[in-house]
Amino acid sequence: MARIVMKFGGTSMAGIERIRTVAARVKREVDAGNEVAVVVSAMAGETDRLVGFCREASALYDPREYDVVVSAGEQITSGLLAIALQAIGVPARSWLGWQLPVHTDEAFAKARIGTIETDALLAGLMSGEVAVIPGFQGVAEGNRITTLGRGGSDTSAVAVAAAVKADRCDIYTDVDGVYTTDPRIVPRARKLKKVTYEEMLELASVGAKVLQTRSVGLAMKEQVRVQVLSSFTGGADVEGAPMADTLPGTMIVGEEEIDEVERQLITGIAHDKNEAKITLTAVPDKPGAVAAIFEPLAAANINVDMIIQNIAHQSNGGGSASATDVTFTVPAADLPRSLEALNQAREAIGFGDLIHDTRVAKISVVGVGMRSHAGVASQMFTTLGQRGINILAISTSEIKVSVLIHEDETELAVRVLHTAYGLDAEVA
Amino acid sequence: MARIVMKFGGTSMAGIERIRTVAARVKREVDAGNEVAVVVSAMAGETDRLVGFCREASALYDPREYDVVVSAGEQITSGLLAIALQAIGVPARSWLGWQLPVHTDEAFAKARIGTIETDALLAGLMSGEVAVIPGFQGVAEGNRITTLGRGGSDTSAVAVAAAVKADRCDIYTDVDGVYTTDPRIVPRARKLKKVTYEEMLELASVGAKVLQTRSVGLAMKEQVRVQVLSSFTGGADVEGAPMADTLPGTMIVGEEEIDEVERQLITGIAHDKNEAKITLTAVPDKPGAVAAIFEPLAAANINVDMIIQNIAHQSNGGGSASATDVTFTVPAADLPRSLEALNQAREAIGFGDLIHDTRVAKISVVGVGMRSHAGVASQMFTTLGQRGINILAISTSEIKVSVLIHEDETELAVRVLHTAYGLDAEVA
Repeated sequence: MARIVMKFGGTSMAGIERIRTVAARVKREVDAGNEVAVVVSAMAGETDRLVGFCREASALYDPREYDVVVSAGEQITSGLLAIALQAIGVPARSWLGWQLPVHTDEAFAKARIGTIETDALLAGLMSGEVAVIPGFQGVAEGNRITTLGRGGSDTSAVAVAAAVKADRCDIYTDVDGVYTTDPRIVPRARKLKKVTYEEMLELASVGAKVLQTRSVGLAMKEQVRVQVLSSFTGGADVEGAPMADTLPGTMIVGEEEIDEVERQLITGIAHDKNEAKITLTAVPDKPGAVAAIFEPLAAANINVDMIIQNIAHQSNGGGSASATDVTFTVPAADLPRSLEALNQAREAIGFGDLIHDTRVAKISVVGVGMRSHAGVASQMFTTLGQRGINILAISTSEIKVSVLIHEDETELAVRVLHTAYGLDAEVA
Repeated sequence: MARIVMKFGGTSMAGIERIRTVAARVKREVDAGNEVAVVVSAMAGETDRLVGFCREASALYDPREYDVVVSAGEQITSGLLAIALQAIGVPARSWLGWQLPVHTDEAFAKARIGTIETDALLAGLMSGEVAVIPGFQGVAEGNRITTLGRGGSDTSAVAVAAAVKADRCDIYTDVDGVYTTDPRIVPRARKLKKVTYEEMLELASVGAKVLQTRSVGLAMKEQVRVQVLSSFTGGADVEGAPMADTLPGTMIVGEEEIDEVERQLITGIAHDKNEAKITLTAVPDKPGAVAAIFEPLAAANINVDMIIQNIAHQSNGGGSASATDVTFTVPAADLPRSLEALNQAREAIGFGDLIHDTRVAKISVVGVGMRSHAGVASQMFTTLGQRGINILAISTSEIKVSVLIHEDETELAVRVLHTAYGLDAEVA
């Protein structure tokens, strides 16, 4: 007997037939003697429809009313799944965010979960009743509905799992696990059996969008064992007859749960084309100059990622002062606002030209193994250099090395690195 | 300054453009210095969509979960109207059924409103904030969402108006008032300026479906002045420029509000084709025989309307016992269940044949004036008889006379009665 939280995304909830398939999957866990809470997303497309209504009603919509509108999508699917479960003989009821309640802060449209009250929820689970909980929603002080921001249902599931001390949080999605890299680029990419929270955080933050980043951070903090697996493998039988087993997915766990022998130096390779490179030329090489660049960006709430400052050289202006070029990256979506902020600060910074380029990609190799193993970065640079791929910028963390390259070389870089780090699957 | 409840139906809320028109109408009342609460329906078609989902998930859906699903429709429109009001500078917020709360009993899917808590609501209204309240929904003991049954938003509006002691409850709908009869049948039908609660109840119960019957009963009990008027007359200007005045609708009020001189003998003529006639032949003419017929129907929760027992005659069976025919009407939708119940009780009742006919119509003349004026019924029978219209059954109440006729003669009967009672509008 285990206590399990199961989470199903919008594609799994898109229409009654699919909701029936979900119900059959839940029944299997119940029949195996488990206590089950299910967290559901809205039907695929529904949240977009509701967000569209709000935007059409007013570009500057009140986020409190936006939350009233968009939370309805998950309310609908939670009631429907409860009905579908009852129809196959599984006791079930829905628990809306305000009913449990799921307490959040008052950051409407992007709220964070505080505590989840579990007395009624646990009493239900222990009596054998499946709890169906709409993801993405909670309630703030003053009894107003909040939502957690797009993708928030993953975070809801992990938060519920932490609150009820679940043995496992199974996230059913449209991929069947976490891979060493994007299988569309490298057909010999392997599905990982296990990945650590830290690695998953780095992978999620650099473009491997299996889970909302915040949900991984919460799982790490609360030590929730998360499994990513597919909604669509394994036959579903609405009548309750045995289904083919779901293929095992990827477990996201603490480092101590991964055996020494299982550990790879590098766990995965991610790529992210949503970066933009900005270069300021002829920035005066004097104290405070760099601060003058990044202060206006911080004030505009823009995250700067990689930064390179070139070696100072004599200014072209002919004077004796030396100058330098400063290059950095920002999210591509923030490029227009970044350029505006920098141009407004032109006087204070005193740069020459403002150059930008969105045809760049960030390639990251991630693995907890590199903590105890030198040479990962140099192997990366050598491998890319041998294929003539030019590195525009570098950044590193304890378990990640990222390089910025030209966008056109993304697939080539991922493939050669995947091979170089020994990640290619054996050919049968 | 007045306190006004405005209610808008699904057609008025169908899409953001129409919601903007509603917002402009609300702004007009606010600009006139009134305190305004708005009760809204779901977008036209949305409740059907959500009910369809529930039925598809299970024919025997749990009404508690059904209420979670279908209440989402009004939740969405209440948030959207609040956003649309704010966009034109009108302070507004939504108040969901569980937030006010609107307390109901636990008859899920067909709940009745108990009390509505008004402290927060009144504080908002008095501060100049428009309250947007989703119709059709409330909350039962144990904090579970309830809905009031189809058309329940009218009842919500009247209940809110009673709770906040509103000066008026304006029901905006797709007709512009209550008419002396269906204008599609009688082009010279007149819009009534005023109608009493009692008359409106009789008209609503015999097919003039402008308002949900229950809402009229509640308005009468709570003495809420209700106005029925059109959403679609009067030009709407989203920019907030003056709109052409809404044409006055029909006020539904207590009898004392209608001047002696305004009173007509007959207020209106309604027709209803949703009845079915059942005849049992050769029922034994003995004590308890009629009770044996209607007990199984009552047990099946079927409302019997008109009843005629023919004069007893000698049974064809040749014995000395006399027998009689019994004819009555039931809602056409209940005909199959009625026949089944009667056939099952065949032994106990002891009838000859079971004959039914759905090609019948009930024509009703309604008016509080007939209380003090004899001859209304006989004028009806004479008028119909002169045109050769055969009367199959008769029933009367204090302010209504109804006859059952052949369905094909419905329009003819309505037209000749409309003229006979002097209801035809003057031709300009």
